[in-house]
Amino acid sequence: MAFNQEIKQLFAKGHESYLRNISIDCIIFGFNAGELKILLLKAKFARGWALPGGLIGREEDIDSAAHRTLEERTGLVDIYMQQFKVFGQADRATQVVNKKLWEEAGIKNDKGWLFERFITVGYYALVDFNKATPSFDGFSTEAEWFNVYELPEMIMDHASLVADALEFLRLQLNYRPVGYSLLPEKFTMPELQKLYETILGRTLDRRNFQRKILGVGILKRLKDRKVGVTPKAPYYYRFDMKKYQQALSNGMGFQL
Amino acid sequence: MAFNQEIKQLFAKGHESYLRNISIDCIIFGFNAGELKILLLKAKFARGWALPGGLIGREEDIDSAAHRTLEERTGLVDIYMQQFKVFGQADRATQVVNKKLWEEAGIKNDKGWLFERFITVGYYALVDFNKATPSFDGFSTEAEWFNVYELPEMIMDHASLVADALEFLRLQLNYRPVGYSLLPEKFTMPELQKLYETILGRTLDRRNFQRKILGVGILKRLKDRKVGVTPKAPYYYRFDMKKYQQALSNGMGFQL
Repeated sequence: MAFNQEIKQLFAKGHESYLRNISIDCIIFGFNAGELKILLLKAKFARGWALPGGLIGREEDIDSAAHRTLEERTGLVDIYMQQFKVFGQADRATQVVNKKLWEEAGIKNDKGWLFERFITVGYYALVDFNKATPSFDGFSTEAEWFNVYELPEMIMDHASLVADALEFLRLQLNYRPVGYSLLPEKFTMPELQKLYETILGRTLDRRNFQRKILGVGILKRLKDRKVGVTPKAPYYYRFDMKKYQQALSNGMGFQL
Repeated sequence: MAFNQEIKQLFAKGHESYLRNISIDCIIFGFNAGELKILLLKAKFARGWALPGGLIGREEDIDSAAHRTLEERTGLVDIYMQQFKVFGQADRATQVVNKKLWEEAGIKNDKGWLFERFITVGYYALVDFNKATPSFDGFSTEAEWFNVYELPEMIMDHASLVADALEFLRLQLNYRPVGYSLLPEKFTMPELQKLYETILGRTLDRRNFQRKILGVGILKRLKDRKVGVTPKAPYYYRFDMKKYQQALSNGMGFQL
């Protein structure tokens, strides 16, 4: 395991360029072939998979840091990212993990700024699986989509960050529309239901789902149907983007 | 303006006890006499009013730090506080404000950790105005409730933190119940409507409001009426706490 100059520099002097004690982590959801996936990186030095994450430049907005990190680690740009939670437990294992890491690399000094505790701000995003072309930087060796229900071993507390992001996403289903950027431009009612079921991790009643989701008024039924899949070819729908955006801004269901 | 030992110590060695570059700020809403109020402190050294805010101990959960800060600065305990936004703009004026502060106190060294940029995590809470007995610590000289629509001059970007908290609270009205802890145990429909109107900053149609809020199913109508206020004495209501809690957990209106 070789530590290159970039990483040694970060260890020794990174605190001159980056804020201390605070970082960001990105939970990037995609939907493909009936599976809810998240994007993970194989960390170069730590053992196991990691969320795309990074530090905040001393003169950089935290939101910009999240976008820069995501682009550096995955090649993804122009993604709408939303802060969903600050992970600030005292026992977050950052120090322990970092210490182990540097010890393995033969670095003895454990007073460095990267050994200190980091509070991390979780950002989540829903992206079009087909448009994402994962790439990665010097801190990771692989980028891969994983089924959120079949995750590999992850570093630190990243598994619990994913669990919290999924819980947040599930709650959001109750008051915000999802689907745009997770589904193709036109989709059938069964496909939309499958998306909701996959996020919720349970099956839904078909008629009840259709009634409720149509009641939100964000869907437009198209003239054509998807043929050859089921005996009764289902209609295609697309989102009415004006109403979709209104529902995003104002929430769904309860408007005073 | 005298700097006591406690504050000199914080300036010189606080980074040994607290995390750097990250702080918390509390937006505490109360409702009284038809006004939505927030609790502010008169900062001892900066000019102007400030949100109750503080630092995070190196071995302290961030949520605990928020509660400790609130208690230290206001005497309020056992308050449900919720993170609502991380304020991480690069140009947050912390450094500038701190620098001015210490210069006025005759401290020349501007390399101290408190001159660095701070990202702050905003917490908000809705409290029973009548139960709050504001007190304060060595960093402030007064604690006072202000009408959120008639705020005094505030330090740094605190006015915009309040504006964002209010916007967050307004959005929450669309999918979460409010009222418990802001209203007395029993209240009339006009009183509940007034709370919503005050938060939203606009009037609502009486019949529409009543129909929608009753539709959520979290209210229980009592047998007694409030007499002597209006010709038609309005019924009292109270929250059905079981259903209120369910609505808090699951959101309102759209349940799959």
